[in-house]
Amino acid sequence: MARKSGGEHSRTGTPAQSPLAPERFPNIPEIAGVRLSAVAAGVRYRGRKDVMLAELAPGTTVGGVFTRSRTAAAPVEWCREKLKSGRARAVLVNAGNANAFTGFAGMSAAETVAKAVATELSCRPAEVFLASTGVIGEPLPHERITRALARLRRGLSGKAWRSAAEAIRTTDTFPKAATAVAEIDGKPYRIAGIAKGSGMIAPDMATMLAFVFTDARLPTDVLQHLTATANRTSFNAISVDGDTSTSDTVLTFATGQAPRHRRISTAADPRLADFRTKLRAVMTDLAQQIVRDGEGASKFVTVTVSGAESPRAARRIGLCIANSPLVKTAIAGNDPNWGRIVMAVGKAGEKVDRDRLVIGIGDWPVTEEGMVRADYQESSVTQYMKGSEIDIRVDVGVGRGRFTVWTCDLTRTYVSINADYRS
Amino acid sequence: MARKSGGEHSRTGTPAQSPLAPERFPNIPEIAGVRLSAVAAGVRYRGRKDVMLAELAPGTTVGGVFTRSRTAAAPVEWCREKLKSGRARAVLVNAGNANAFTGFAGMSAAETVAKAVATELSCRPAEVFLASTGVIGEPLPHERITRALARLRRGLSGKAWRSAAEAIRTTDTFPKAATAVAEIDGKPYRIAGIAKGSGMIAPDMATMLAFVFTDARLPTDVLQHLTATANRTSFNAISVDGDTSTSDTVLTFATGQAPRHRRISTAADPRLADFRTKLRAVMTDLAQQIVRDGEGASKFVTVTVSGAESPRAARRIGLCIANSPLVKTAIAGNDPNWGRIVMAVGKAGEKVDRDRLVIGIGDWPVTEEGMVRADYQESSVTQYMKGSEIDIRVDVGVGRGRFTVWTCDLTRTYVSINADYRS
Repeated sequence: MARKSGGEHSRTGTPAQSPLAPERFPNIPEIAGVRLSAVAAGVRYRGRKDVMLAELAPGTTVGGVFTRSRTAAAPVEWCREKLKSGRARAVLVNAGNANAFTGFAGMSAAETVAKAVATELSCRPAEVFLASTGVIGEPLPHERITRALARLRRGLSGKAWRSAAEAIRTTDTFPKAATAVAEIDGKPYRIAGIAKGSGMIAPDMATMLAFVFTDARLPTDVLQHLTATANRTSFNAISVDGDTSTSDTVLTFATGQAPRHRRISTAADPRLADFRTKLRAVMTDLAQQIVRDGEGASKFVTVTVSGAESPRAARRIGLCIANSPLVKTAIAGNDPNWGRIVMAVGKAGEKVDRDRLVIGIGDWPVTEEGMVRADYQESSVTQYMKGSEIDIRVDVGVGRGRFTVWTCDLTRTYVSINADYRS
Repeated sequence: MARKSGGEHSRTGTPAQSPLAPERFPNIPEIAGVRLSAVAAGVRYRGRKDVMLAELAPGTTVGGVFTRSRTAAAPVEWCREKLKSGRARAVLVNAGNANAFTGFAGMSAAETVAKAVATELSCRPAEVFLASTGVIGEPLPHERITRALARLRRGLSGKAWRSAAEAIRTTDTFPKAATAVAEIDGKPYRIAGIAKGSGMIAPDMATMLAFVFTDARLPTDVLQHLTATANRTSFNAISVDGDTSTSDTVLTFATGQAPRHRRISTAADPRLADFRTKLRAVMTDLAQQIVRDGEGASKFVTVTVSGAESPRAARRIGLCIANSPLVKTAIAGNDPNWGRIVMAVGKAGEKVDRDRLVIGIGDWPVTEEGMVRADYQESSVTQYMKGSEIDIRVDVGVGRGRFTVWTCDLTRTYVSINADYRS
């Protein structure tokens, strides 16, 4: 068996931090009912933490969305199956090996790990959720994980957010976390999440790895509904390279351990308004952090499409712009190349009125009536493009559909990271 | 009006020739009824030919397929409209300006040029076909073209294939042409074509600029059918970067000027068997030359997908592999990263049997039963990947659908060409 054969990511060592990284890791509060731990188990990397365990209080509900890849990894299949029960007592994640395209051995390795976690924490294997991220196509050395479980359990703490976020990284250059407080019945409930992702970040599917926790008390179907809804405009609105992982997973856990609010039985309950907003904010923050850590990224780009036939059409047009190599390389070169935006809008295949297409970059309107504006001053826009936060607005002139996607530029560094790391 | 604002391509000067270029320009015979000419009209470039005119004998029929872009250029709209009559007397092409996203002025400029060509050649404007390629979003300086028409007419010759192919280039590093002889009723008929294309080369749409001529006598509907059919497995089977031009155009012209075969009235006529094969061969040759001139390309990649539900599903999977930045950068780095091929197969969304997926690279089988083969020797495959012609075969194990696509790798040079040419 060749090592590094499948390879989502296989570098060891820590690359320089993305220039778009947040200034510091946020201050994440304890979430009642959640304890975390991370250790170096040597699954693939040396000298860094690579396995994290979160223990969840009895009664914790779980929601999840997963990759739509037709070659999904074994842990994704495991979670999809176990999600039906709606209950979770633990989530275990390893980095360095995706346990994807590993045949029947893959599911057997997942089961072995889940059983060992269940024994360690005195729960049922079906209550243990799993995720693996890293090289595709190599057998998971599951004994390295199971051997580390006692150490993981001993280290469990409500404060270990940073080491948990660090342990799940692959080519990520910084650990990702976000938090918010939401009110239900006037009482505060905490939401906190961690995520990983840098390359193989794609549209039209579920997401990357993200784990979000709250101490609110939410029935499984409500939590699932809130998760899927928030996912649509957060993780499903980002793209680094248009490539979709076999392992994308978002799991949300509600422990119900904070002082109780009145029972909630439907996602449409108006008392969830603030929670819905804050959950979406946490997931959007995590999603944007993934883009900010996009492989080789030097600019964070917001593409807002309006005037489309539907939000779905707007999203498709936005992703066409965000995934266009020609648009992305122009942005890398500080080039306000709006002709390429016209091209990308055209190729999306959605209804657009070419002669009413309005493009704006930053605060500058660029086009009107199907051509460039008479007062367009490219020098100002070029100056703007030298910044690291770029806004692109497109109105396609046919309806009221609107969607915002986030992406980064395509640089020589992206090619270097992905072409050269084995040489 | 800022120059270089829209920019498909705007470099002047000739970049180094692609390492994948054919050894020499082919020997293209005269096609009875076709005379060509090319001049330097200064549309945008200095010091090189940039406009070409082909004059066609009376009675010439025409077929065409065009970009499906929703922001198609004015000349594309012109051709689509004029194609209905099925007759052509001339085709005029300029490089350097795409006459795309130029508002109402764009169609007016196209009409002005067509009328001037018609006057020069004593035909009707509706018999003049047009194509423009280059920067998007700038008004076409049509007077530079019309001023050059007399010179173009004086230069008309049956032999001017090379200068015609050179005049229609933008970032192309070599002129592209192909030819074949097809038999109908035992008599030989010639087919010859020229093409341009290097970046903004995309799937799922029509093509790039290509013009194919024959001296056979084919009714318009037959020619159209043959063209659309050959297009599906030639120009529609290539991708450089997944980006679709606003100007993609394939036009085929049948002059009927060679000694006559018996009348052909349907594309299903068995006497067209050889012609069909040869037309497809010429168009495939031209399409592959475009890939060989892909911006920054260092490797020519053939992706053959079999075992899919349908040829359409196989094509979609093939293009997903061919357009994946992670697969393309791995190829650039001589990395037989089959895990990324698994990923790309998975994201296509077509039915696949993960556990019967078979991947082969060159002569090496890589996977079986949903995992890497026990006898896989990566060192041999890595050696193979250092070559410049890479074959990837994927069988997805669910049906009999099959399709082959051609692409190139994604290199730092692609990023440089598209990020930096204005700095």
